[in-house]
Amino acid sequence: MFEPPTASTDQQPGELGLVQWHDFVCREEFVFDSGQKLPGITIRYETYGELNADKSNAILICHALSGDHHCAGVHSFHDRKPGWWNNIIGPGKPVDTNKFFVICSNCLGGCQGSTGPGSINPETNLPYGRDFPWLSIADMVRAQHLLVTKHLGISCLYAAIGGSMGGMQVLQWGISYPHAVARLLPMATTARQNAQAIAFNEVGRNAITRDPDWNNGNYGRGKGPQTGLAIARMMAHITYLSDKGLEEKFGRGKVTAGSNRSPLDAEFEIESYLRYQGQSFINRFDANTYIYFTKALDRFDLFGPSGRLEDALSAVSARTLVIGFTSDWLFPPPQNRAIVQALLRCKKHATYAEIDMDLGHDSFLVEAPELYTLVRNFLSV
Amino acid sequence: MFEPPTASTDQQPGELGLVQWHDFVCREEFVFDSGQKLPGITIRYETYGELNADKSNAILICHALSGDHHCAGVHSFHDRKPGWWNNIIGPGKPVDTNKFFVICSNCLGGCQGSTGPGSINPETNLPYGRDFPWLSIADMVRAQHLLVTKHLGISCLYAAIGGSMGGMQVLQWGISYPHAVARLLPMATTARQNAQAIAFNEVGRNAITRDPDWNNGNYGRGKGPQTGLAIARMMAHITYLSDKGLEEKFGRGKVTAGSNRSPLDAEFEIESYLRYQGQSFINRFDANTYIYFTKALDRFDLFGPSGRLEDALSAVSARTLVIGFTSDWLFPPPQNRAIVQALLRCKKHATYAEIDMDLGHDSFLVEAPELYTLVRNFLSV
Repeated sequence: MFEPPTASTDQQPGELGLVQWHDFVCREEFVFDSGQKLPGITIRYETYGELNADKSNAILICHALSGDHHCAGVHSFHDRKPGWWNNIIGPGKPVDTNKFFVICSNCLGGCQGSTGPGSINPETNLPYGRDFPWLSIADMVRAQHLLVTKHLGISCLYAAIGGSMGGMQVLQWGISYPHAVARLLPMATTARQNAQAIAFNEVGRNAITRDPDWNNGNYGRGKGPQTGLAIARMMAHITYLSDKGLEEKFGRGKVTAGSNRSPLDAEFEIESYLRYQGQSFINRFDANTYIYFTKALDRFDLFGPSGRLEDALSAVSARTLVIGFTSDWLFPPPQNRAIVQALLRCKKHATYAEIDMDLGHDSFLVEAPELYTLVRNFLSV
Repeated sequence: MFEPPTASTDQQPGELGLVQWHDFVCREEFVFDSGQKLPGITIRYETYGELNADKSNAILICHALSGDHHCAGVHSFHDRKPGWWNNIIGPGKPVDTNKFFVICSNCLGGCQGSTGPGSINPETNLPYGRDFPWLSIADMVRAQHLLVTKHLGISCLYAAIGGSMGGMQVLQWGISYPHAVARLLPMATTARQNAQAIAFNEVGRNAITRDPDWNNGNYGRGKGPQTGLAIARMMAHITYLSDKGLEEKFGRGKVTAGSNRSPLDAEFEIESYLRYQGQSFINRFDANTYIYFTKALDRFDLFGPSGRLEDALSAVSARTLVIGFTSDWLFPPPQNRAIVQALLRCKKHATYAEIDMDLGHDSFLVEAPELYTLVRNFLSV
């Protein structure tokens, strides 16, 4: 799975080239918000760039629902694709690895190396499955805080950056550890899931848990409710895009058809695209993690019992830039703007920026010069 | 299933009271757009009000994907709910049964009495299942035309009215039978499915056809891919509502929970609501019909190969009113407006009206005084 880095001759200018992951094995008891405990956790992470002498140049990247710790560079020169945010992270890029020490970890509860429901429960020698504690965004952030402070010895992050579920983690960092992060850059995110976002997650969870192979979350590696997980992903993928973006990319384009195809085969290009998205997802993601992460998303509510976002955000001391995207209908601009409005009511240093793009929620992941400029400028001061 | 009407004492003023369905059994060969044929078809329908002497007061109501022929009144005074458009159809209501003879039929391919994939194939004595011909919106309309002209002897409808898939049928009436309909009132509809609408239907179809009980469409009555159908319905139901409407109705409201509930039980009210919608749908709908109807929707494209909507709409001679709803994101206002714009370019008598409501696509089905006024006025001249 992992190849050690070798001297690179092919490396492109501005590209990180080969990167490697590491495991932080924390043998301290980890207590979840729920009160449940694990005797210890492992957090898989990558770093790019060099930590400076006073450890003041570290930037934490927080990933979204289906992301992981591998956000830039390649693990092998045979890799088809680099990390998921390679366009924005690298030498000379907006998150400049010539200046910054960039950290990205697989969230607690994940399925790419960090402890999660697919990890082996030492008490049973079987995967935790549904015995894994229910976790919150704050739990994910607490695990990241252990990694950053205890393991890497960094007392204060230069910045925390992330989109979608990553943006929630960024906000939680500012609230849980106000003195351990100097800049917050959440984007395409929300301070609480609204009913429609919960609704889509609930359909996805039902597709998974009503798959006959769900078996109450007990299944071996590479098995389990793969059909349900594919259906969940196909649906969710629509919510990451936009009406206009889909129309421009696919419209009513037809798949080239053989004469004896069934009408139930993919007829339109959008159908073929979604089927591919569903199928490729089951090869890299775990259904239990999907359930746990979507529950963490749905329970995320910085408005809290009082209904006042200011109550949570009053703890923040970091400078904050929140970026919304016009075509994002999963976490639309008003939900992003509301975070900044509440921060400003608390007399915090906060700015809202809105980028006019057609690609929907996933706009934050694609080539976007305006986003690059915003990120670069925010990190420069 | 059917109780004959009895003298009503409970009937509310303005309510139709007891209604009954009828079957039109057409023994002529029915040729589908695909070239496939059935030796005959049955169309189940209801009528309300009285046909006048010159048969000039007939209004056809066309139903949406999950609707049926029972659009007003009750079949029995024990019925929990009246027909699906009872708020708009009845004595003194916008579609006034004191003036008009109202007809509504279950679409060809349906599962509420008209010939569809669940009907018995006389050649095999088993349900057609996947042997049922693939059908188009135009096929549904051709069957309605047989009902209206051959069976009911009406040469020209006063109006055809319908929302969503019903709106597509209304448009198709104007194109296929320009001299058989004087007024078209489609609403919350489109002249062609766009990529996003196809995408959601494709996820629904995949949920059904990848359910182990799908069995390639061969299953007995009350059996089949019920989980897949419920998942499809839950997802589709979200697309019928709106972000704002869901937020106002459910927000983050929690289900009252017992202490030992699993986090996989419905936690939020929206989850409980969607599960109920999925479960109740499988009790009244057939998965094959869902597949056939959504394919008919996805293939509906009045822009045609030329990409010019005018080419199809130039045939229309009826006066047309198209109504869009601001919060409808399945068939948003621009898609409704585009129909009228094309009709006007063809020098047709056409008007577009937009109603500002928060309930999404399903706005056309709910109490809406502005809609009532538009319908009443359109039918009065």
